[in-house]
Amino acid sequence: MTGATEKIKIKGTKSISIKEIAKICGVSTATVSRVLNDNGRFSDETKNKVLRTVEKLGYKTNNIAKSLRTKKTRSIGIIVPDITNEYFANIILAIQNFFFPQGYSVLVYNTNEDQGKEDLYLKDLEAKCVDGLIYFFCMEDRGQIDAIRKKIPVVFVDRNPNRKGAVVVESDNYTGGFLATEELIKSGCRNIVILRHILTNSTIVGRYKGYRDALNKYGIPFNPDLVLDMYVNANASKEAICRLIECGIAFDGIFACTDWLAVGALMALRKHNIKVPQQVKVVGFDNVSISEYSSPSITTINQDKTRLGEIAAQMLLDMIDGKSIDEKNIILPVELIKRETT
Amino acid sequence: MTGATEKIKIKGTKSISIKEIAKICGVSTATVSRVLNDNGRFSDETKNKVLRTVEKLGYKTNNIAKSLRTKKTRSIGIIVPDITNEYFANIILAIQNFFFPQGYSVLVYNTNEDQGKEDLYLKDLEAKCVDGLIYFFCMEDRGQIDAIRKKIPVVFVDRNPNRKGAVVVESDNYTGGFLATEELIKSGCRNIVILRHILTNSTIVGRYKGYRDALNKYGIPFNPDLVLDMYVNANASKEAICRLIECGIAFDGIFACTDWLAVGALMALRKHNIKVPQQVKVVGFDNVSISEYSSPSITTINQDKTRLGEIAAQMLLDMIDGKSIDEKNIILPVELIKRETT
Repeated sequence: MTGATEKIKIKGTKSISIKEIAKICGVSTATVSRVLNDNGRFSDETKNKVLRTVEKLGYKTNNIAKSLRTKKTRSIGIIVPDITNEYFANIILAIQNFFFPQGYSVLVYNTNEDQGKEDLYLKDLEAKCVDGLIYFFCMEDRGQIDAIRKKIPVVFVDRNPNRKGAVVVESDNYTGGFLATEELIKSGCRNIVILRHILTNSTIVGRYKGYRDALNKYGIPFNPDLVLDMYVNANASKEAICRLIECGIAFDGIFACTDWLAVGALMALRKHNIKVPQQVKVVGFDNVSISEYSSPSITTINQDKTRLGEIAAQMLLDMIDGKSIDEKNIILPVELIKRETT
Repeated sequence: MTGATEKIKIKGTKSISIKEIAKICGVSTATVSRVLNDNGRFSDETKNKVLRTVEKLGYKTNNIAKSLRTKKTRSIGIIVPDITNEYFANIILAIQNFFFPQGYSVLVYNTNEDQGKEDLYLKDLEAKCVDGLIYFFCMEDRGQIDAIRKKIPVVFVDRNPNRKGAVVVESDNYTGGFLATEELIKSGCRNIVILRHILTNSTIVGRYKGYRDALNKYGIPFNPDLVLDMYVNANASKEAICRLIECGIAFDGIFACTDWLAVGALMALRKHNIKVPQQVKVVGFDNVSISEYSSPSITTINQDKTRLGEIAAQMLLDMIDGKSIDEKNIILPVELIKRETT
């Protein structure tokens, strides 16, 4: 019989309580509540009567009042670096698809890797009283990351803050970096460039470690001149590879830490009439559409974006529901997708 | 002195009222309120004292209570077909960037062009009491579209429901379709395929009308065999163009109503060793990254995604603030971006 006393005026609607609806329909308030929440038994006749009355009179389950009573807003926040990047968008989509049938809506905050923005977003999420947060952080201040965890349930996705007790869902970036580099080595490459995101987070650290270990395993000396750091966009990697070519530094393979960096590398190679895969081989990371539809199509490391989102969402829901999380760090497997650039 | 009586327990924080903060700081509740809302005059000393106390004691402007008092949730909804499509993601990003500094957060709902989902989302947005809606509808039921407009402020973006009094921001799709087709004609094409979204909405209707009028202006007979309808994905357009080639239907130009459809067309042409732009020319629509970074890069019609989002957001904010909207249908200009496929 929750909601029986709710009576809130909402713009453009008449204000009416469950009690009044019950009276009009000649049923109990409990029955009205069951129909509105689609919870429990009632006849089709009762259902139709109640719903018609509700519609006619403009009653709404007023979530504001409900939130005040339950201390739940039935909303979760997502802080994400770039929703225009299909990799992140796919994860957000999986999270929204998971949470909506559970009655939760999703607030999206885009940082563009700006810590100042991220800081403001954390304050806003707190003020908006979201029930939980899915957090792709760029914040370097681990104190702030710990602070938000004390206030609301938080699941970290993609990037691991490496904090005690933090709940994290990530891809096996180390194995991804290893497989990408091994693919280049097995295709005959000996001078392998790595294109990295300039922001050092766990994804890049893992992929780089995989790259180093693969070189090591196959007895290929590491050359620091071949490690190129940049912001993730195709033009940046195009310029970096062009500079390398113009400086006369020899290379025969490129491991790009994202598919978009691989796209820029391909543009640079095309500009200098270097044939792919004959003269230089390329492997990307993420397996977003551009890797499949680029010409040549790009060999890449697949991340299971839908599973990353679904598992993060399930863990966050469990935390919101007060369930204990046994395994706090889920690492999803990656796989090599062989295409035309190797 | 709003907020002086707010006192809500939030998970993980101590519950404390403005009154108590005022007492501790030795200032009035009005002063505390002014500091918290950054509104009006107070000394730096007072500000620091209040903020330190607030931080120490974990007071928060509890937005739930505030919402109940103001009848505003300071949130807006966006219903969008596909956040993984960079075109929509760019508009969402502009909307979020506009609204956040105004104190609003953004709830994102992805329909995947599913009317059933859209229907549920509309109900949820109402129940969540959002202050307004930015609406890329797929709904064919104009009655439902009218119903939501009666309840909350709505701005339609991209797709025009053609309803009296509806506030709409859209690109000049007609001119876009005309310019794309004219570009193909001026490059020598006479048999021009059009690849359309199977869902007939105003964007497609406008582009198609532009295509027909351009053919007409240049005295090129219309051939219904060259009108191909499909869902927007690269594989669908690849298959459609392959079928056309295999059926022996002659064509020398393709106007793809989105860049992703153009990408699929290029794949089909490549598969059949048809040279672009020598044998067949292609123009896309949207100007998303794939058109710039594809090889060959794709001539396309630019839509100003950021402006679409910003103008829609400004209009929605004006409506929420009760301002009158003089111009209810904003049509943004488009432009031809010439690249390698023409």
